[in-house]
Amino acid sequence: LERPRQLGMAKNTYMRWRLPLVCLLWEVAMIVLFGVFVRFGAEADAHWEEEKGEMNLTSDIENDFYFRYPSFQDVHVMIFVGFGFLMTFLKRYGFGAVGFNFLLAAFGIQWALLMQGWFHSFKDGKILIGVENLINADFCVGSVCIAFGAILGKTSPIQLLVMTLFQVTLFSVNEYILLNLLHVKDAGGSMTIHTFGAYFGLTVTRVLYRPNLEQSKDKQGSVYHSDLFAMIGTLYLWMYWPSFNSAISDHGDAQHRSAINTYCSLAACVLTTMAFSSMLQKKGKLDMVHIQNATLAGGVAVGTSAEMMLTPYGSLIVGSISGIVSTVGYVYFTPFLESRLHIQDTCGIHNLHAMPGLIGGIVGAITAAAATEDVYGKEGFIKAFDFTGVYQARTPSIQGGFQAAGIVVSLLMAFVGGAIVGGILKLPIWGDAAAE
Amino acid sequence: LERPRQLGMAKNTYMRWRLPLVCLLWEVAMIVLFGVFVRFGAEADAHWEEEKGEMNLTSDIENDFYFRYPSFQDVHVMIFVGFGFLMTFLKRYGFGAVGFNFLLAAFGIQWALLMQGWFHSFKDGKILIGVENLINADFCVGSVCIAFGAILGKTSPIQLLVMTLFQVTLFSVNEYILLNLLHVKDAGGSMTIHTFGAYFGLTVTRVLYRPNLEQSKDKQGSVYHSDLFAMIGTLYLWMYWPSFNSAISDHGDAQHRSAINTYCSLAACVLTTMAFSSMLQKKGKLDMVHIQNATLAGGVAVGTSAEMMLTPYGSLIVGSISGIVSTVGYVYFTPFLESRLHIQDTCGIHNLHAMPGLIGGIVGAITAAAATEDVYGKEGFIKAFDFTGVYQARTPSIQGGFQAAGIVVSLLMAFVGGAIVGGILKLPIWGDAAAE
Amino acid sequence: LERPRQLGMAKNTYMRWRLPLVCLLWEVAMIVLFGVFVRFGAEADAHWEEEKGEMNLTSDIENDFYFRYPSFQDVHVMIFVGFGFLMTFLKRYGFGAVGFNFLLAAFGIQWALLMQGWFHSFKDGKILIGVENLINADFCVGSVCIAFGAILGKTSPIQLLVMTLFQVTLFSVNEYILLNLLHVKDAGGSMTIHTFGAYFGLTVTRVLYRPNLEQSKDKQGSVYHSDLFAMIGTLYLWMYWPSFNSAISDHGDAQHRSAINTYCSLAACVLTTMAFSSMLQKKGKLDMVHIQNATLAGGVAVGTSAEMMLTPYGSLIVGSISGIVSTVGYVYFTPFLESRLHIQDTCGIHNLHAMPGLIGGIVGAITAAAATEDVYGKEGFIKAFDFTGVYQARTPSIQGGFQAAGIVVSLLMAFVGGAIVGGILKLPIWGDAAAE
Repeated sequence: LERPRQLGMAKNTYMRWRLPLVCLLWEVAMIVLFGVFVRFGAEADAHWEEEKGEMNLTSDIENDFYFRYPSFQDVHVMIFVGFGFLMTFLKRYGFGAVGFNFLLAAFGIQWALLMQGWFHSFKDGKILIGVENLINADFCVGSVCIAFGAILGKTSPIQLLVMTLFQVTLFSVNEYILLNLLHVKDAGGSMTIHTFGAYFGLTVTRVLYRPNLEQSKDKQGSVYHSDLFAMIGTLYLWMYWPSFNSAISDHGDAQHRSAINTYCSLAACVLTTMAFSSMLQKKGKLDMVHIQNATLAGGVAVGTSAEMMLTPYGSLIVGSISGIVSTVGYVYFTPFLESRLHIQDTCGIHNLHAMPGLIGGIVGAITAAAATEDVYGKEGFIKAFDFTGVYQARTPSIQGGFQAAGIVVSLLMAFVGGAIVGGILKLPIWGDAAAE
Repeated sequence: LERPRQLGMAKNTYMRWRLPLVCLLWEVAMIVLFGVFVRFGAEADAHWEEEKGEMNLTSDIENDFYFRYPSFQDVHVMIFVGFGFLMTFLKRYGFGAVGFNFLLAAFGIQWALLMQGWFHSFKDGKILIGVENLINADFCVGSVCIAFGAILGKTSPIQLLVMTLFQVTLFSVNEYILLNLLHVKDAGGSMTIHTFGAYFGLTVTRVLYRPNLEQSKDKQGSVYHSDLFAMIGTLYLWMYWPSFNSAISDHGDAQHRSAINTYCSLAACVLTTMAFSSMLQKKGKLDMVHIQNATLAGGVAVGTSAEMMLTPYGSLIVGSISGIVSTVGYVYFTPFLESRLHIQDTCGIHNLHAMPGLIGGIVGAITAAAATEDVYGKEGFIKAFDFTGVYQARTPSIQGGFQAAGIVVSLLMAFVGGAIVGGILKLPIWGDAAAE
Repeated sequence: LERPRQLGMAKNTYMRWRLPLVCLLWEVAMIVLFGVFVRFGAEADAHWEEEKGEMNLTSDIENDFYFRYPSFQDVHVMIFVGFGFLMTFLKRYGFGAVGFNFLLAAFGIQWALLMQGWFHSFKDGKILIGVENLINADFCVGSVCIAFGAILGKTSPIQLLVMTLFQVTLFSVNEYILLNLLHVKDAGGSMTIHTFGAYFGLTVTRVLYRPNLEQSKDKQGSVYHSDLFAMIGTLYLWMYWPSFNSAISDHGDAQHRSAINTYCSLAACVLTTMAFSSMLQKKGKLDMVHIQNATLAGGVAVGTSAEMMLTPYGSLIVGSISGIVSTVGYVYFTPFLESRLHIQDTCGIHNLHAMPGLIGGIVGAITAAAATEDVYGKEGFIKAFDFTGVYQARTPSIQGGFQAAGIVVSLLMAFVGGAIVGGILKLPIWGDAAAE
């Protein structure tokens, strides 16, 4: 079990200076851009003591911090421990998965604060940030962690950082189109995070296809302890997903409802995953990769609709279906993608994020289209879909149409963006994947 | 360290279809029952925007979500990571413990939402759920996880699911008798969760007794990494137990007090556990099984009384005693139970849950009987014990008597229920324990 | 991989009774002292129902529990899982690190509740405790966990308990001098927790210097799984540090701001750590010890200033610098400390806590000295620095001076206290370090 204490990639002196240079230059850029643009939002600024009155807040507890901070911390755990440890199920990539996930996420959240800030929190030349921005930055980086799952083992740390830079940028543009131009609801990110992130990553891995990459037993096998480490990732994602889907929903009933719907969907997903995993194996045994991954599809699949009146039984149905689709994907689609389409999907993100993300987008469109004032209440209906201002005249069926358009836009952004970024990553200047 | 990636139990074709069928049929049943019965409670429904006024709430922050959601997430971690990983200290059952705990808990919470809903949240033909229901469902499943600790290694996944179905049902009946008929206080579940769950599991394992089960060195031994994985379970249970005991207490001082009492009790328990572990070993060394388990007894033992005015020093006393009892149990009782009573207690739940649960029930009865208006304040006294309506005339000593009756009822339900369910599990139709 | 299930230290019969006796006597002392002194604070007492009105609180949500409990739980995880697992990167000390950290912290929080209570929560002969006391007790114990990192492998459990007793005492005195006499701000404990804890531990390890202690490859090497276990510690410290620095800040904007500043500082720190780790290695590889430790320096270094108007870009700068200093420290200072100064710093706390703690104190002094009414607002300025009562006339530059004085006092307390306590620990009565 002895091994060197280093996590490596570099092969020569030239390489040796590349990662340090990229990290330092980018951090300096972040400092400069933050210095020019980023300031505290009203609720995090010391002036709040005076502005509280103007904001009609009677108590400190009304600060958005107390509505969202516990959920933020849960999301934070999902990004760094959840995604990081989930990928340790591949025995060759244990520490690398956790370590590089840490690196790309730490860089990504800084760039995401800027990109999303320019689009959504820009006022008088400054980006004003608060806890909701931190959550959104984590969300954005979540889509990069997803894409990382497809290319794990094929890229150097520098390539990862380059991909993060571009993917965060594209994510923010796509999110702006969906949320602001199409006025689409997607609080848990079925479309913006999962569909976009997964198809982006799959496109990149297709571009980076290496015929001779060892994909089989040896490199992708798991070992006993790897499986337990991976279950840490799985369980934290599973347990905290209700926080993920409710973190940026409207205060009050919407956050409450999102958590309940997600809890129900995930519970159902576990049962159908176990059922199909056992059914599709030759000897009726349960495949650990399914338990580690497909059980999470239920969280992805209610990402758009969790804050809507999906109802608990609706959530059970969505969760059940997504568990089945995801497990079937691991058994049949992943081998097909690799052998026929030359898409090497290291962690199976097509099964865990891409297909469930599409289901999530579709369920969201249907749930929105089926909304009625009777079900939501008059005020609740307007609040749930923000049918105010220029969107006052939107009907549920029109909203459903725009929701569907959001899926298409996300797919297009992912394919086109992934192809371009994949091409950029192929440039020889970034160095090659770790030998480790 | 190489091993197959599958978690298995099935031996023949007939078996192959059994787990899938049970999982799918039960999930379909859940969907139908949820469809008929389960709806969002007022605070999770989109009508809340309108009902807020009627409920006299001035702000979204008054939604029960914000009072209980952080505690819910902590409890959720305890059930899935805490109980799951705690059981990995047995080297043979590492992944199986975590994986099957995941399966039974995911099924159990759905069935618990229904059973507890019919008893406690039923209105106009519908079960109205909110965050408190999610916590209670997790609590209920906690008692199944406890029982699982006794039978670990002796049952197939299908037997586990069958046991979960029956145990959740019996738990809900017992809980209804205690909370509604006897009007007993038990917010942290010393009686309803720990005493009931543990004696139920011990009775089942007695019925399933196998003389030739390897109980010794080989199968139950631990390995180095198993001990660290188990410590993840231990520490998350230990750290979040204040949330467990305060999660469904009354808003305000009661939640606050429960957390403090539990924090104190657990701290004291660690010291007496270490002391007795070292004292009872031949060479004064510390037994890791004690550190992993007995340190938690302090949380169990204040489960009933934590929300009462137990006081911090009272908590230290209770925690100290329970650490001693639990450690002594591991050294002397567990071998005795197996050799004389043929009770194979795989994880030692008699020491961690049964005896501390009884202590918890007794301490609760005494603390309730000793309550005075002087200590609680006039309003606080009525609020703490819900001495309103038909219970207006209850005195502390009568309450203490009912609390004691709650212990007896829980024990009876556990023994009778465990014997019946154990008999059902012995039917040959469920398949046998995994060879793995 | 088979190994004995015991965690040991004792060699003879005399030793056998020492740990049990110390644990039991101390726990009895705690019970007596808690019985005499500790009671529930107003917000955790059943009288709260009546006092709510007097406290001008309109709702149960105004109870301090809801402002601080989620942060408390995060801090709790940092102390028990974070510090415990971080130290598992040393392969010889895996379980011992987690287990003994558990023991000392469980004892330490009880003693800290008393010591800090006498200084800060004493009223009419009683210590009145609430959730803020629990956080402060965890903080205090955090400084002991830090010192433990320096002496890991050199002390017996009894020596650890003795050190905890004295260090908690000295911590509380130092904290009282800083917060009450110097009126210094240090919510995240750069000075009180990190600077004091680290230099105290380094002084103790110097006194306990053993020339023949195997410090090299064998004993301090890491193994593959150790690195993943250590990453659990690292990531939980990293993710929850925003909660650590904001846990006891003023309600509202101060807590909000602390979390944002810490989030930014930590993100920047990861990038500069990776850059310098790669740059300083011969082959450009990343050193896992750096990733596991130096990435956290950013949290330490904004401990004092996070609740001030440090601004997000200020946090990026501080985080960047501390990552560099810490990584350079691992490469150059740690070997120097051992070979020249005979300071065996097992876990490298000089790099993770001592130097970043000093940076934190200095940044805090500068940020305080640079404060203006313009930046903070008139009310915000007074509130942020508590410039009320006898401190009404303090100016920012005077405050900066007192902040600097706080660093000096903390260093003096650490050196003098550490030398004395180190001497006490050398007494032969405490037994020797575990052979294990």
